[in-house]
Amino acid sequence: MPKGNKKAIVLLSGGLDSATTLAIAADGGFLCYALTFAYGQRHLREIESARKVAKAAKVRQHRIIDIDLAAFGGSALTDKKIPVPKDRPENKMAKSIPITYVPARNTIFLSYALAWGELLGAYNIFIGANAVDYSGYPDCRPAFMAAFERLANLAAAAAVEGKGRFKIHTPIINMTKSQIIKTGTKLGVDYSLTHSCYDPDKSGRACGRCDSCILRLKGFADAGLIDPIGYVKK
Amino acid sequence: MPKGNKKAIVLLSGGLDSATTLAIAADGGFLCYALTFAYGQRHLREIESARKVAKAAKVRQHRIIDIDLAAFGGSALTDKKIPVPKDRPENKMAKSIPITYVPARNTIFLSYALAWGELLGAYNIFIGANAVDYSGYPDCRPAFMAAFERLANLAAAAAVEGKGRFKIHTPIINMTKSQIIKTGTKLGVDYSLTHSCYDPDKSGRACGRCDSCILRLKGFADAGLIDPIGYVKK
Repeated sequence: MPKGNKKAIVLLSGGLDSATTLAIAADGGFLCYALTFAYGQRHLREIESARKVAKAAKVRQHRIIDIDLAAFGGSALTDKKIPVPKDRPENKMAKSIPITYVPARNTIFLSYALAWGELLGAYNIFIGANAVDYSGYPDCRPAFMAAFERLANLAAAAAVEGKGRFKIHTPIINMTKSQIIKTGTKLGVDYSLTHSCYDPDKSGRACGRCDSCILRLKGFADAGLIDPIGYVKK
Repeated sequence: MPKGNKKAIVLLSGGLDSATTLAIAADGGFLCYALTFAYGQRHLREIESARKVAKAAKVRQHRIIDIDLAAFGGSALTDKKIPVPKDRPENKMAKSIPITYVPARNTIFLSYALAWGELLGAYNIFIGANAVDYSGYPDCRPAFMAAFERLANLAAAAAVEGKGRFKIHTPIINMTKSQIIKTGTKLGVDYSLTHSCYDPDKSGRACGRCDSCILRLKGFADAGLIDPIGYVKK
């Protein structure tokens, strides 16, 4: 990736994947503008993490946008009436699209990134989607990302007027969780600032039992590293 | 279009184009769910019109979603520091992308429609985009709409699981403003409920001088009809 004066929008959830993606973008010489969404998720604790990660990475700006995905309901991540699945074996996760799927989430997130990118003249958009150690979300696949990049360059005045072409960067899309953790560790990511759990307790501690916790813990174990965050005692 | 029990999401701004699009969808036998956005636009008056139009059309549900496009700034429609252009001759409007352009607006709107559509099982999305009598917005072109439809069917769990394929309907995209008005008039649209002006006065009356008013007035004149809304006296 080019060293130099290139601006990038980096979608930052506060989780492990997006923190690593931000480190990769910064290491590539991009001037990073972090974008976080408060979307009625149960795990608001993530947003606190996003603030800390953005600050540690010394991003140029960090915007937190309120969006009301809970208005539509239908996901365990936004609808308190739907329980978060627990203790699922890893080989069961990828078999079907889980109830933690939030319809059109990445489409909406990338659309906002496109809006801000056009206004900033930031034509590089980084998203920490992962198609390997993930739970079968269709909008994390490379084909989806390619289709969004195509759409962006038809939608944006900047692209139509030849000022710049949008590129969607997915640097960790084909990495395993342990590869992501090793990469981030080399780049100095402080994973104690990150948060992954879908269902933390009132003090913000990770449950250790949802799909996201299970994948995270396995990733650290496979990487031969210790996860620095605290978990609820079982 | 099929008569029967098909659900559709209809993007409804409160303007003339989307009111006509809703009438076309309803006439086609679709069960209509109207979706309106409050996006920090100057012309909040539009949302009041959207409510009236939705009610008159007896839609199944009408959702108004707050989205903060003004957070990014940069458009005369969301940023009060940028003046709305006035008195531009119609042949000047299409020459460049105007300052009333809101970056990624239709991408964001369609993304929310996709989210709601997936939850409702409503795979038909109607949008009143128009590529003829319009002011050069790139995200109103047929190529953009085709790219979004492709994206939707990669993004949505419903499409991936074979429950339904999304279709983006743009029934007025190639109509002139007078054709739109004639079509809506035949279908019984009450244009007195609609609002088009980018810069109404405090009582909500249209200015008669912005691009949107000029195109509307010309459309009624070309159709041989009288625009039923009031304008500020010049």
